[in-house]
Amino acid sequence: MTKLSWGIVGGGEGSQIGLAHRMCSALDDKFQFSAGAMDINPERGNEYGVRLGLDADRAYGSWQEMLDGEKNRADRLDLVTVATPNATHFEITKAFLENGFHVLCEKPMTMTLEEAKEIVALQEKTGQICAVNYGYSGYPMVRQMRDMVRQGELGSVRSFVAEFSHGFHADAADADNPRVRWRYDPKQAGISAQFADCGIHALHLASFVLGQNPKKVSADFAACLDSRELEDDALVALRMEDGAVGRLWSSSIAIGRMHGLTLQVFGEKGGLRWAQEQPNQLYWNPINQSVQILERGQNGLSQSSLDASRLTIGHAEGAPVAFANIYKSIAKDIDARKAGKPVGAQDIDYPTAFDGMVSMAAIDATVRSSKADSVWTDLNI
Amino acid sequence: MTKLSWGIVGGGEGSQIGLAHRMCSALDDKFQFSAGAMDINPERGNEYGVRLGLDADRAYGSWQEMLDGEKNRADRLDLVTVATPNATHFEITKAFLENGFHVLCEKPMTMTLEEAKEIVALQEKTGQICAVNYGYSGYPMVRQMRDMVRQGELGSVRSFVAEFSHGFHADAADADNPRVRWRYDPKQAGISAQFADCGIHALHLASFVLGQNPKKVSADFAACLDSRELEDDALVALRMEDGAVGRLWSSSIAIGRMHGLTLQVFGEKGGLRWAQEQPNQLYWNPINQSVQILERGQNGLSQSSLDASRLTIGHAEGAPVAFANIYKSIAKDIDARKAGKPVGAQDIDYPTAFDGMVSMAAIDATVRSSKADSVWTDLNI
Amino acid sequence: MTKLSWGIVGGGEGSQIGLAHRMCSALDDKFQFSAGAMDINPERGNEYGVRLGLDADRAYGSWQEMLDGEKNRADRLDLVTVATPNATHFEITKAFLENGFHVLCEKPMTMTLEEAKEIVALQEKTGQICAVNYGYSGYPMVRQMRDMVRQGELGSVRSFVAEFSHGFHADAADADNPRVRWRYDPKQAGISAQFADCGIHALHLASFVLGQNPKKVSADFAACLDSRELEDDALVALRMEDGAVGRLWSSSIAIGRMHGLTLQVFGEKGGLRWAQEQPNQLYWNPINQSVQILERGQNGLSQSSLDASRLTIGHAEGAPVAFANIYKSIAKDIDARKAGKPVGAQDIDYPTAFDGMVSMAAIDATVRSSKADSVWTDLNI
Amino acid sequence: MTKLSWGIVGGGEGSQIGLAHRMCSALDDKFQFSAGAMDINPERGNEYGVRLGLDADRAYGSWQEMLDGEKNRADRLDLVTVATPNATHFEITKAFLENGFHVLCEKPMTMTLEEAKEIVALQEKTGQICAVNYGYSGYPMVRQMRDMVRQGELGSVRSFVAEFSHGFHADAADADNPRVRWRYDPKQAGISAQFADCGIHALHLASFVLGQNPKKVSADFAACLDSRELEDDALVALRMEDGAVGRLWSSSIAIGRMHGLTLQVFGEKGGLRWAQEQPNQLYWNPINQSVQILERGQNGLSQSSLDASRLTIGHAEGAPVAFANIYKSIAKDIDARKAGKPVGAQDIDYPTAFDGMVSMAAIDATVRSSKADSVWTDLNI
Repeated sequence: MTKLSWGIVGGGEGSQIGLAHRMCSALDDKFQFSAGAMDINPERGNEYGVRLGLDADRAYGSWQEMLDGEKNRADRLDLVTVATPNATHFEITKAFLENGFHVLCEKPMTMTLEEAKEIVALQEKTGQICAVNYGYSGYPMVRQMRDMVRQGELGSVRSFVAEFSHGFHADAADADNPRVRWRYDPKQAGISAQFADCGIHALHLASFVLGQNPKKVSADFAACLDSRELEDDALVALRMEDGAVGRLWSSSIAIGRMHGLTLQVFGEKGGLRWAQEQPNQLYWNPINQSVQILERGQNGLSQSSLDASRLTIGHAEGAPVAFANIYKSIAKDIDARKAGKPVGAQDIDYPTAFDGMVSMAAIDATVRSSKADSVWTDLNI
Repeated sequence: MTKLSWGIVGGGEGSQIGLAHRMCSALDDKFQFSAGAMDINPERGNEYGVRLGLDADRAYGSWQEMLDGEKNRADRLDLVTVATPNATHFEITKAFLENGFHVLCEKPMTMTLEEAKEIVALQEKTGQICAVNYGYSGYPMVRQMRDMVRQGELGSVRSFVAEFSHGFHADAADADNPRVRWRYDPKQAGISAQFADCGIHALHLASFVLGQNPKKVSADFAACLDSRELEDDALVALRMEDGAVGRLWSSSIAIGRMHGLTLQVFGEKGGLRWAQEQPNQLYWNPINQSVQILERGQNGLSQSSLDASRLTIGHAEGAPVAFANIYKSIAKDIDARKAGKPVGAQDIDYPTAFDGMVSMAAIDATVRSSKADSVWTDLNI
Repeated sequence: MTKLSWGIVGGGEGSQIGLAHRMCSALDDKFQFSAGAMDINPERGNEYGVRLGLDADRAYGSWQEMLDGEKNRADRLDLVTVATPNATHFEITKAFLENGFHVLCEKPMTMTLEEAKEIVALQEKTGQICAVNYGYSGYPMVRQMRDMVRQGELGSVRSFVAEFSHGFHADAADADNPRVRWRYDPKQAGISAQFADCGIHALHLASFVLGQNPKKVSADFAACLDSRELEDDALVALRMEDGAVGRLWSSSIAIGRMHGLTLQVFGEKGGLRWAQEQPNQLYWNPINQSVQILERGQNGLSQSSLDASRLTIGHAEGAPVAFANIYKSIAKDIDARKAGKPVGAQDIDYPTAFDGMVSMAAIDATVRSSKADSVWTDLNI
Repeated sequence: MTKLSWGIVGGGEGSQIGLAHRMCSALDDKFQFSAGAMDINPERGNEYGVRLGLDADRAYGSWQEMLDGEKNRADRLDLVTVATPNATHFEITKAFLENGFHVLCEKPMTMTLEEAKEIVALQEKTGQICAVNYGYSGYPMVRQMRDMVRQGELGSVRSFVAEFSHGFHADAADADNPRVRWRYDPKQAGISAQFADCGIHALHLASFVLGQNPKKVSADFAACLDSRELEDDALVALRMEDGAVGRLWSSSIAIGRMHGLTLQVFGEKGGLRWAQEQPNQLYWNPINQSVQILERGQNGLSQSSLDASRLTIGHAEGAPVAFANIYKSIAKDIDARKAGKPVGAQDIDYPTAFDGMVSMAAIDATVRSSKADSVWTDLNI
């Protein structure tokens, strides 16, 4: 049980995402925090890394230094997490992949669909792990949904309804707050705001559970505050690769919704319902029977769901554990590779570069549909 | 407190809707069941009416006989309910209105938009009451929502999300059951199935609460069972008259949803959430404050909401009382007219012919959009 | 389908309970409101009765006049409801029973255990119906619980947990309000306040569902407001006739509880949970399986539960319908008697005088235990 | 930000509690796992410790070796966690305290009240930290409740209702399973089963939130399975030091309850309700106003609550974070001591030896009451 060595680019002092990655990578005793390039200011980054317990020579001043320093070490990093500002994800992820590192990249993986396709091509060429941090897929009951679909318990899936809505950008008096404003400014945020920020999590979740990707979309984007250029409320109709019907709503002006990520899946033989705010229960209605409440950790759940569960049934497990499961699943993959075991597609529980690319294609297509009178628009995959 | 006299066309023996109307009209001691033409078979209708306590001469054999018999009586009916098969609503409603009767018509008011416009014109010309039975608007907490919007507690309304989904037409093995099949057959059901049957209730509820009607729509209709021609799942994006954004989902294949009529309304100053399955609570989130749970019957609710409430706070009140409130509101209007009091638009708590016409226009527009690649389509009002 | 004739003692103008009885008796077209002695003031009672549509000669000035007037009529009342102030229930119920009337008495049936035993003896002697209005037992899902216990689905019942708590007497500033104060004054309310008022409903519900009565109790009564002599918060441990363990909590100072009547039943083979505020769902956990949500009106429920259900599944049905079911069940019994059909104990769905007597015995025993250092105290049945 | 050094006694390979302690102590980068005596088998313990990354000389073969090895080191442990079998807690905790270590002891702190008093005396004499792992008090919204009570938002607290019930020992077919059986055998489990195991958590929670301890109890213990000697269902009435009324129910045969730890607190000015299974919401009803839903992390919550919160509002946080908060609070105390800052009683957020002693006194008193016909019995503190 030697620990894997782990390093991070970004996530410096005061960064919540940096703390979350250290917390979640540490949760299972699988990864040892061994290197970092944590700050745009080299000295500050070095000093912070040492304070966190890194050896001084692995508390790097920049990601380039880190790449140079690590690539020739015998004990080089087993996994590099990229948690820098969005616009830099592509360049850093690419560089580490090219040099033979496994990478976990924060979402969004890239700023454009073209870049995303380049990462996918690179990942396929190198065979390295390139994971993308759609952390909600780490929830045990999300994996249970996926496994129930895989095992055919729902029969053919006919439709899904996904939501990710909150109300924390509803206050007009706060709309010019820089913390909020940049998100709706295409110069800073790109072509989409709320759909790219939150909606895409809901769509990934649906794709993850259904085991298939969206094929085409009809989208309605609305900017409910006059001061905004980009959408704060999006409705998207979808068709998946095999024809399944999708409905997705995402809003940031839905006062009263907190962190409203939910998924419902309806098949020939039953329906499922799950909500992130109460993640330990999964509502399962086998057709013509009563609704059942499946509890995290319950006997009879799928192995992947049980593996993602840490405490006995009934304890409230939450997001930190879900996010840690992404690390746990990557560790399992790295361990298998080290042991020379084959890793099939069905064994991969974490989101991949391909998922990151599909997300970029979905954002691209929804924006195009929204601008074209909501006509149906194919994803350009 | 003389009771008003009430009669019904349709709703014969074994009809659930007939029983519901008798139960709901009786609930408040306001209406006396006085006449009926309850069966397509004159003898059966007469016999049944007498068994229910009608005088033999007012247990009519047909609606035409009832119209002839009542129109010349000194004690003619104060209100006629039309609860016959859908295709006959127009003709019967029209005839009674033309002869000076107040009418409560079951939904849908007509089969076409043109007929609906004719009824509206007739209602306006005669000045008679023509109510349409969108009964869910009778729930006390629905009226509370409307009144909070009216009083400006939400500020300008930016958006709403409405749903009405169930899973009782999901079973492929039951799809040929005549009880289900006709609904998805355009020869019998018209141009729309699930949206016209259920979705329109959700849309009426939103319009009722917002105090404004839809202006244009982009719709995606899907028939998730291969055997169906009409939609069993509909997603509709809307813009209301004043620009408010709408999202509406209605499905009959959503296994696990029972009677999933819900409404969320989001304004500048707060958000509301209500669900028919738990109708006595209304979730209200004034912006930047905590979510509050408003309870039916609670001090401080609007007068109209309190008037629609029968039992003290905390008792589960339900649909029969909500439906009875439609009768109660009509009685209030009739009483005011009899007393010579003016009745303004704000005093009318029941759904009207105009609402019935808007519904027909919305069905017409969603069908057109759905067939035209989901492009935005204006309501033809 | 001739209607049964029904009359009421008490429930005059402005009385909520009178309105409720008229509404609930009318709901099913089973009873015709035919006579009343509705006010302590004879003229006011007569005038009000006539206004409600009674014949002038059956709008009586007092219950004695009503008894005299009705007992010799050929079309005498089929059922008399007693809805007068508590202290008069015994006398009036007794008088009507002695004269061959069926009676539905408001709760509490009597003020003392001795009186209650006298009513039970009289009921047994006359064979007349003497029902007591524990109306919550009319909820369809309560009957479903009872029937599941009867049919052995839970195996032997080991324990129950019952609650009936609210917070509407918590305000010290309102404690001297006469509307509240009398309840905690032994001169007016008798030996118990909150337990006798609310707790006893919870205990009846448990007894109804378990099909057995309490045998002994250990009780802790607390008056949480200094100004009170009688309890506003009660905790009671129980043993039922066959040894099942009971836990009961009832409070009127539980701020945040509204109408918190709940029941949980735990047997060898499964557990049930039901709450009055969400009465259409019943949570059923067969041992070693998932929790199931049973919905009112669902296929496979017991006949008695389905009979008590009016609307299709998913509609929110509530308290008025539940209370109407008491009338419906009494009507069924009267009809069977008129038709000469035998009525067995298992056919009786409404609460009886025996239940009313057990309640008085339970109040008596809890008070004695509470005053005696909470020692275990037998019911004196 | 030098890390504190941490060691553990017990929690060897395969132990869930050991994993939980390592996970929770690591979560905040505050503690470095530095020493352990993790197994009753010295070699296995040493080997496992090394595998987990300990230096070989700090992977001890026994707790005595660990005590000897650590007490003379310059870099001796800052905190020792005791996670051994219950019967050994007293001896080990005592030994480490006597030698100047801070200790976090698993619950129960001791097997008898006398031992507990000895630990409290020792803790007071040495001034060392002796924490006891009532981990549920680490939930942010539990701290919020405590702080609202402290700040007088409820006014004087009148009563509380606490529960901790599950159904996982309900299966008679599983009762002889050694994993279950020992708990109900006084030879192995001591004088109480379910109350000592689960009920005591609920009682600690209530005491923590109210800021006061129980003074006397009336208890009813029941063994609902014939094969059991000790109770599997307990009901306890309580009076707290200042007279507040308590009601507590704990069961292990409540099929359908999962991990049903809940607390309701009722004061003069409002009521609170919290449930462990949905720990991120706190229901707060200020008297005569609407119920409010307070969300973990929301603006305006107490500082202690916000400090215990890791993710932004709406994310499901759960038990692992709550348990980690115990470590975080201890670390804060150690850091303050190292910095020479005064630590007042109000600054201590973790449960202490005194709490552990009160728990033993409560178990002792409830058992005595239960055996003495449920008479009221004082805690012997």
